[in-house]
Amino acid sequence: MGGTRFLQVVPVSDAVIAAVSMASLPVLEKVPLDSAAGRVLAAPVLADTDIPGFDRSVVDGYAVKAADTAGAGETIPAMLQCTGKVAMGDSGILQPIKPGECMYVPTGGPLPAGADAMVMVENTETAGDMVLVKKPVAHGENVLLSSEDFKKGEIVLPAGRKLSPQDVGVLAAAGCARVPVTKKPVVGIISTGNELVPVIKKPSPGQVRDANASMLGAFLLGYGCIPKLYGIVKDEKPAFESVVTRAVAECDVVLLSGGSSKDERDMTAGTIAGLGEVLIHGVAITPGKPTIIGRVSGKPVFGLPGHPASAYIVLIAIVRPLIDRMLGMEKPEVRTLQATLAMNIPSQRGREDYVRVKVADGIATPVFGKSGLLNTLVASDGVVCIPAGSEGLEKGSEVEVILW
Amino acid sequence: MGGTRFLQVVPVSDAVIAAVSMASLPVLEKVPLDSAAGRVLAAPVLADTDIPGFDRSVVDGYAVKAADTAGAGETIPAMLQCTGKVAMGDSGILQPIKPGECMYVPTGGPLPAGADAMVMVENTETAGDMVLVKKPVAHGENVLLSSEDFKKGEIVLPAGRKLSPQDVGVLAAAGCARVPVTKKPVVGIISTGNELVPVIKKPSPGQVRDANASMLGAFLLGYGCIPKLYGIVKDEKPAFESVVTRAVAECDVVLLSGGSSKDERDMTAGTIAGLGEVLIHGVAITPGKPTIIGRVSGKPVFGLPGHPASAYIVLIAIVRPLIDRMLGMEKPEVRTLQATLAMNIPSQRGREDYVRVKVADGIATPVFGKSGLLNTLVASDGVVCIPAGSEGLEKGSEVEVILW
Repeated sequence: MGGTRFLQVVPVSDAVIAAVSMASLPVLEKVPLDSAAGRVLAAPVLADTDIPGFDRSVVDGYAVKAADTAGAGETIPAMLQCTGKVAMGDSGILQPIKPGECMYVPTGGPLPAGADAMVMVENTETAGDMVLVKKPVAHGENVLLSSEDFKKGEIVLPAGRKLSPQDVGVLAAAGCARVPVTKKPVVGIISTGNELVPVIKKPSPGQVRDANASMLGAFLLGYGCIPKLYGIVKDEKPAFESVVTRAVAECDVVLLSGGSSKDERDMTAGTIAGLGEVLIHGVAITPGKPTIIGRVSGKPVFGLPGHPASAYIVLIAIVRPLIDRMLGMEKPEVRTLQATLAMNIPSQRGREDYVRVKVADGIATPVFGKSGLLNTLVASDGVVCIPAGSEGLEKGSEVEVILW
Repeated sequence: MGGTRFLQVVPVSDAVIAAVSMASLPVLEKVPLDSAAGRVLAAPVLADTDIPGFDRSVVDGYAVKAADTAGAGETIPAMLQCTGKVAMGDSGILQPIKPGECMYVPTGGPLPAGADAMVMVENTETAGDMVLVKKPVAHGENVLLSSEDFKKGEIVLPAGRKLSPQDVGVLAAAGCARVPVTKKPVVGIISTGNELVPVIKKPSPGQVRDANASMLGAFLLGYGCIPKLYGIVKDEKPAFESVVTRAVAECDVVLLSGGSSKDERDMTAGTIAGLGEVLIHGVAITPGKPTIIGRVSGKPVFGLPGHPASAYIVLIAIVRPLIDRMLGMEKPEVRTLQATLAMNIPSQRGREDYVRVKVADGIATPVFGKSGLLNTLVASDGVVCIPAGSEGLEKGSEVEVILW
């Protein structure tokens, strides 16, 4: 059958280094605040003003000089003269209060000058324009101090941060209406394999629908990339070369999906080698060994295995770190969960083994099954990685589950 | 100061029931497969064909009758006559193999009739058109059987499932090019408070930027809703009534954000009561007590507290279950993490206490801070809920962290 039967497999760490080293630098673009969530900050954002810009009451009550309430109690309340009421949005340039005076301030309102604490209205009684304070307050009590949240010029969020909804709130407070984020990498997906038919077509015997392209595209879209699907290309060298050339010109990363047979792998590797260079052909990862990593016109091109589970795990373990780098993420967005293993998992020393698991009540149960099956991928919550140096994990061990 | 000072607070569970009972029924719409990830299935999806539709090799090698390889070994291999090679995409209507025969099949290719197992090419040698098999295989070995993934007519994914990237792969395999999902609820956000200014404006003393609307909108967008921002409305009853009326007509749910002072709460409650009815005014939750739940024209209207942390926690704890119901989700999408508490957290019996925590290496450390601060919200990874019946949690207890 000719060609290299046994691949020169490299450790996963080498594959990740090779992939990440091809990352292009993140490019900054500005987007409106309301579409910034989930994007990655390309530059730190500073507070353009103190937040809040004034001492702010956090209760409904009376602004006082704390010293005036010392020793106040139910039986012998402090008596203060109320000089008025602050309204929401008042400028804060108010008539200052003097010793023995107080002013009503609603929650969120500014303290008048001279006041240094708030007494909750629940702890007072009124008698004409006098207020009886029945509980003492300390300096600063019930007050959000000026700049207590953020100081003017302070970094409110650092570059490399993937923005959560709360982060968007912080950006709003900091006046960041147009947010400097990293551009979404464009990732081309080329499906290869003469057995593949599009989703809309009913497969004849010997044919299967192209499930991987949709799956990869859905992951990439949700992960902050722009997936670009090139459809199914027949395993004929000229057609294959032409679409790879086009995809490399139009995208930042190109994934070739499908083609698990030796002939197809050879075609993929040959095409990449013809247009650029093959860096890695075979990774010590299970499932996913027949992975190809190459470079064409300076851009990363991956030959992913054809089995859905294999393709997905290589995407998570090897392609994602590259995407993270291109997105400028300060740390990978990996969600993990500690769990106890429900049974022994044997593994072959020398390869990283990714075992799909289902997690319930802190127990991780392996979902064994052929990597060609979709149902095991869907039935699992994530994977447990067994390092290359290990011969497996024992029932009852504490494991870290990498959630999908 | 007038009005009801002390709210008639209800337990969180009652607030959730009141909210969820107002959920409108999910509405089905069809979307293209490539935009289905993250959406919720409105109907079960069935396989329109067996997946795969034929017995499929998972290795490169020879299709054989397993019985022909019984007892084969390195020294005494089984000798089979190779009658040809199957190509990818072949119809599978192939010349059947007879006893003593085999055919080359690449990974993913169909087995010829008569074959019931695959021998990996690594375990063979060729001599002319004879193949020497040096390792026996069992019936079905190295084969993905027809319909092993899914049977025709089988439910591949149930209604109510929030679609993951892998799910999208399964839908592709099942031929579901247009996916029946639930319509995104439209959620109106009205900001109230005379102290609020838009993000683009520099706040004067006494003013603050409206951070909550952006934060709520970002959460809702990511959660599969369509947020609709109505901007900042001054606390004047006619203006307020007019915008609430418009929002209720245009949206499925309306959130009134801001207004933590008693006067503002009274205005919110008065407006809701005037246009419809107030169901709940005050919830036994910390932070978030001054929450209002009402109904206008049959639609749920919430008065959220003004402090960012309070608003976010009420959103998570009370509004989200309503959204889940409107999205038709089979189960809430809550990510939790087991962790050990780093210190004692006291709590007041009779209210549900949501304590923000930071989690590192399995240790949850409370992030204490006024609920008016954004920085504590951003510094935390999630919350620990202390039930109403508890007086707090002890250092070292195992807690469940609800991740943001």
